[in-house]
Amino acid sequence: MEGGDGGGGDEVALERAFEEMPVPPWQNQITIRAMVTSLVLSLVFNVIVCKLNLSTGVIPSLNVAAGLLGFAAVKAWTVTIEKCGFLKQPFTRQENTLRWPILNSPPKKGGKQVWVLFKSFVSSFLWAFFQWFFTAADGCGFSSFPTFGLQAYNRRFYFDFSATYVGVGMICPYMVNVSLLIGAIISWGIMWPVIESKKGDWYSADIPASSLHGIQGYRVFLAIAIILGDGLFQVIYMVVVTLKSFVQQLLQKTDAHNESEEGALVDYNEMRRTEFFLKDQIPDSVAIGGYAALALLSTFVVPLIFPQLKWYQILVAYVFAPVLAFCNAYGCGLTDWSLASNYGKLAILVFSSWVGLDHGGVLAGLASCGVMMSIVSTASDLMQDFKTGYLTLSSPRSMFISQVYGTAMGCVLSPMVFWCFYKAYSVGDPEGSYPAPYALMYRGIALLGVEGFDSLPKNCLKLVVVCFLAALLINLVIKLLREYETKYRIYRVIPSPMCMAIPFYLGGYFAIDMCIGSLILFVWEMKNKKKASDFAPAVASGLICGDSLWGIPAAILALAGVKPPICMKFLSAKANKRVDSLLGG
Amino acid sequence: MEGGDGGGGDEVALERAFEEMPVPPWQNQITIRAMVTSLVLSLVFNVIVCKLNLSTGVIPSLNVAAGLLGFAAVKAWTVTIEKCGFLKQPFTRQENTLRWPILNSPPKKGGKQVWVLFKSFVSSFLWAFFQWFFTAADGCGFSSFPTFGLQAYNRRFYFDFSATYVGVGMICPYMVNVSLLIGAIISWGIMWPVIESKKGDWYSADIPASSLHGIQGYRVFLAIAIILGDGLFQVIYMVVVTLKSFVQQLLQKTDAHNESEEGALVDYNEMRRTEFFLKDQIPDSVAIGGYAALALLSTFVVPLIFPQLKWYQILVAYVFAPVLAFCNAYGCGLTDWSLASNYGKLAILVFSSWVGLDHGGVLAGLASCGVMMSIVSTASDLMQDFKTGYLTLSSPRSMFISQVYGTAMGCVLSPMVFWCFYKAYSVGDPEGSYPAPYALMYRGIALLGVEGFDSLPKNCLKLVVVCFLAALLINLVIKLLREYETKYRIYRVIPSPMCMAIPFYLGGYFAIDMCIGSLILFVWEMKNKKKASDFAPAVASGLICGDSLWGIPAAILALAGVKPPICMKFLSAKANKRVDSLLGG
Repeated sequence: MEGGDGGGGDEVALERAFEEMPVPPWQNQITIRAMVTSLVLSLVFNVIVCKLNLSTGVIPSLNVAAGLLGFAAVKAWTVTIEKCGFLKQPFTRQENTLRWPILNSPPKKGGKQVWVLFKSFVSSFLWAFFQWFFTAADGCGFSSFPTFGLQAYNRRFYFDFSATYVGVGMICPYMVNVSLLIGAIISWGIMWPVIESKKGDWYSADIPASSLHGIQGYRVFLAIAIILGDGLFQVIYMVVVTLKSFVQQLLQKTDAHNESEEGALVDYNEMRRTEFFLKDQIPDSVAIGGYAALALLSTFVVPLIFPQLKWYQILVAYVFAPVLAFCNAYGCGLTDWSLASNYGKLAILVFSSWVGLDHGGVLAGLASCGVMMSIVSTASDLMQDFKTGYLTLSSPRSMFISQVYGTAMGCVLSPMVFWCFYKAYSVGDPEGSYPAPYALMYRGIALLGVEGFDSLPKNCLKLVVVCFLAALLINLVIKLLREYETKYRIYRVIPSPMCMAIPFYLGGYFAIDMCIGSLILFVWEMKNKKKASDFAPAVASGLICGDSLWGIPAAILALAGVKPPICMKFLSAKANKRVDSLLGG
Repeated sequence: MEGGDGGGGDEVALERAFEEMPVPPWQNQITIRAMVTSLVLSLVFNVIVCKLNLSTGVIPSLNVAAGLLGFAAVKAWTVTIEKCGFLKQPFTRQENTLRWPILNSPPKKGGKQVWVLFKSFVSSFLWAFFQWFFTAADGCGFSSFPTFGLQAYNRRFYFDFSATYVGVGMICPYMVNVSLLIGAIISWGIMWPVIESKKGDWYSADIPASSLHGIQGYRVFLAIAIILGDGLFQVIYMVVVTLKSFVQQLLQKTDAHNESEEGALVDYNEMRRTEFFLKDQIPDSVAIGGYAALALLSTFVVPLIFPQLKWYQILVAYVFAPVLAFCNAYGCGLTDWSLASNYGKLAILVFSSWVGLDHGGVLAGLASCGVMMSIVSTASDLMQDFKTGYLTLSSPRSMFISQVYGTAMGCVLSPMVFWCFYKAYSVGDPEGSYPAPYALMYRGIALLGVEGFDSLPKNCLKLVVVCFLAALLINLVIKLLREYETKYRIYRVIPSPMCMAIPFYLGGYFAIDMCIGSLILFVWEMKNKKKASDFAPAVASGLICGDSLWGIPAAILALAGVKPPICMKFLSAKANKRVDSLLGG
């Protein structure tokens, strides 16, 4: 689940303000210091996103965090250099773009915000550090705190004191958090208890709790049904919007469009931006040649890594990908919303059923999803970057080079960070801190692809169909209300099916964290709306970064075999009596 | 340990402002509504003080809490009556005095402060309520949280999440809290570990941990030595100050003393106040007759309750008491500091050694302490009340009647509240929530009285002498520095021996709570000194009242046999393994 946000709209006279400032040639726009700064930030956000991905998969927009951390890094960098006495050249607007390409200028009130972020970061880090001491074993510590009682805890309703998700909740829109909570209540509060009461009838009572043929199957496949239903709707909707926009553009092509009073200014901005954008174009031959070369490379290399995938299957993926990538980039440009993960899910279904169960279709499906998602999402990312570059007079070449540089860093850092998490924690353990829910979801989709509906336990298919249709229907209702009911704007209070599906597997604990984040934001906004909107994102970013970055020393400690000394345990009064007699005797 | 505070000094033109307002006759100054309000507040503060007394014995000045709660009660009362449509007469200055006799007028900014107090009260109450669920048995819950690790916890250094003592810490001066912490570090951090290493040499290794002949003896008697040393110093000092003031008064008797520019105004104030004060004098015959009658009654009744005390011993106490009561009331008038508890300790020593061990000297000593303390402290309390009455033109008769009314309420409410605590909790259990440390201290003093120094374990006498002398010396140094070193005022950073002695028996946990209170206040003052001084007392009062008043429902639940459902337990990693294998198997 990802949310994007667009560029600002108040840049009417912007280029006049920057007119005097020389724009450096594209080779000079990429400097060593920008690359070093981005390396450090890249590591930081790799850790944060890896933690978020493996714990719940809910990843909020981290723009503000990136922007502020970048700003702080630049400050620290320039102050240090200045003190050492050899600052030659201040950071330019173009350099900043290379470090935070979704922001146009360093944030206003940057200094104060960074200070707030720093305080919140330190508190969050120390809180995570403090929590660590009490987690001697599984089920110990604040993350197992039965805040609403043991029964609610067993149904995964508890506040787990995670600063990360409180921060995420402060960033995500209210409706996302409420949707998550509603999803948790519907699934863990109503549906699972009912299905569990059919144990022995709907599914065998003997199979292990983690088997997809038991209660776990209902959790995973009902979530998948909603996610696929939601995804399908979004893809169809995007196709419709794209076509509509195409048609409109064709019809209006001959109309003049700069007849407003601001016309001249906009024209000046656009003229200057277009000038710089076209100056350093990337030749078509390079683009097409590069894609062909990469396709060829992949066709040979990927089957070596995943023998389940044949070379011609990779080739097919590379043939179809540009079409999907174009659709996605265009839609993303219109709505700021990338649907790359939906195309990935589509790829899983197609390729896993193509390869078939006997030839390792599950793995093949997942691998093809990786290929497809990288192509589709890179295209829309790059398009967004070019848009930012256009607005900041950054050369498209330097943007492209930095995208390549970023991708190269990601190729090294991401597996490294993942490896750390994987070695230090039991990633994928449904009861652990890192259940990696999307891993199971994607695997479930692949299973559907190879086994069809045979893999579902009894009555699950009916429920899957209901969930799938419900997801389509709710989305349709939202879009229709949004379009035609403009008085009360009821669409704003209809929960999102996609959000509701996430706690189906995980339970409500992180939804509660996030709702507490919402509550904090709400109270803050009540008290001082201006201050809240200025500083809440900084506080939230600090909470997320501090808690997540504690993951680095924690992982190192875990790898070094250092165990926390204390277990904070929660026992029922009855169990406590037994324990007391054990420890007393 | 009690702190007092004096009346304001800015009432120069006050009586002009109140000139127009008629002063009701004394019978009308006491109204039903005032009595009902004070009954409710009396119950509230009985619970609070009982909790404070039984948990640590540290009782801060609760003036602000009483004033604000009184103000809130009056507001609620008048608003209700007004809504019902029959408010005849607004609360008068005299009525207010009867409800909060140490305040001259309802606090300024009262409304805002009450609102802050209310919020802090509710948070504190809910926090205590939440904590309750996790205390299924002894050693469970937040009050056993090994915040600084298990080793520190075993040495009683931990933050026990008590809102009460965080609030107390916000009210007490910084130096009190720091003194407590220093005392805890010296005793539990250094002295007890050293003495415990002599186990088997200095004291037998076989005796139970709670015996006064073991480590517990050192803890109790060293604390007593400091408390007695401190008390003796204060009594001597007070005698010196009193005598000095007497002599000065005799010398200056003939001098005129109203020659300042404010003379006329002060004269007007004093004239009007003296007029009202003398109008309703209590005749000497009533005062003397009343005391004689009470002495006679006690002489017959007290030996019936405590057969260890003979009638002539009570009579002796009643003969000597007026002298001590006069000294204390006079000293208290000068310094706003009542030494009643010190006279009580003196009484324990005298009477317990007089009655002797074989005739129940310990109990006799403690009973006589009760008699002596009530006489001495009532005298100084009444004198303070008369002073307030004088300043607010309240009739001394109405002040006296309300003092009688308050005492009568106390006679009923205090034993009731104590009984509730006593039945609901294991009061006096050194490991429990209510160790009643002063009970043990006073019993220790009585033991010293009957057994002399024979009751002390090996080397304890030497240490007792050192502590006693150290207490005298430190106090002397403080007074000398205060008098003669006025530049840096170093005396402010010398810890108080009395305060240092309290954690000797209890350990540092509540000192840590209180220091956290200090820290909060300090940070708040750094940020906004004005706001902190306006609202910190209200926040602190809310914290104390909320947490303490949770004691009422908690006691009712305990009496009804309702146990909390969960135990939040803290286990070492090793113990946790054993527990996991027990619960898993």
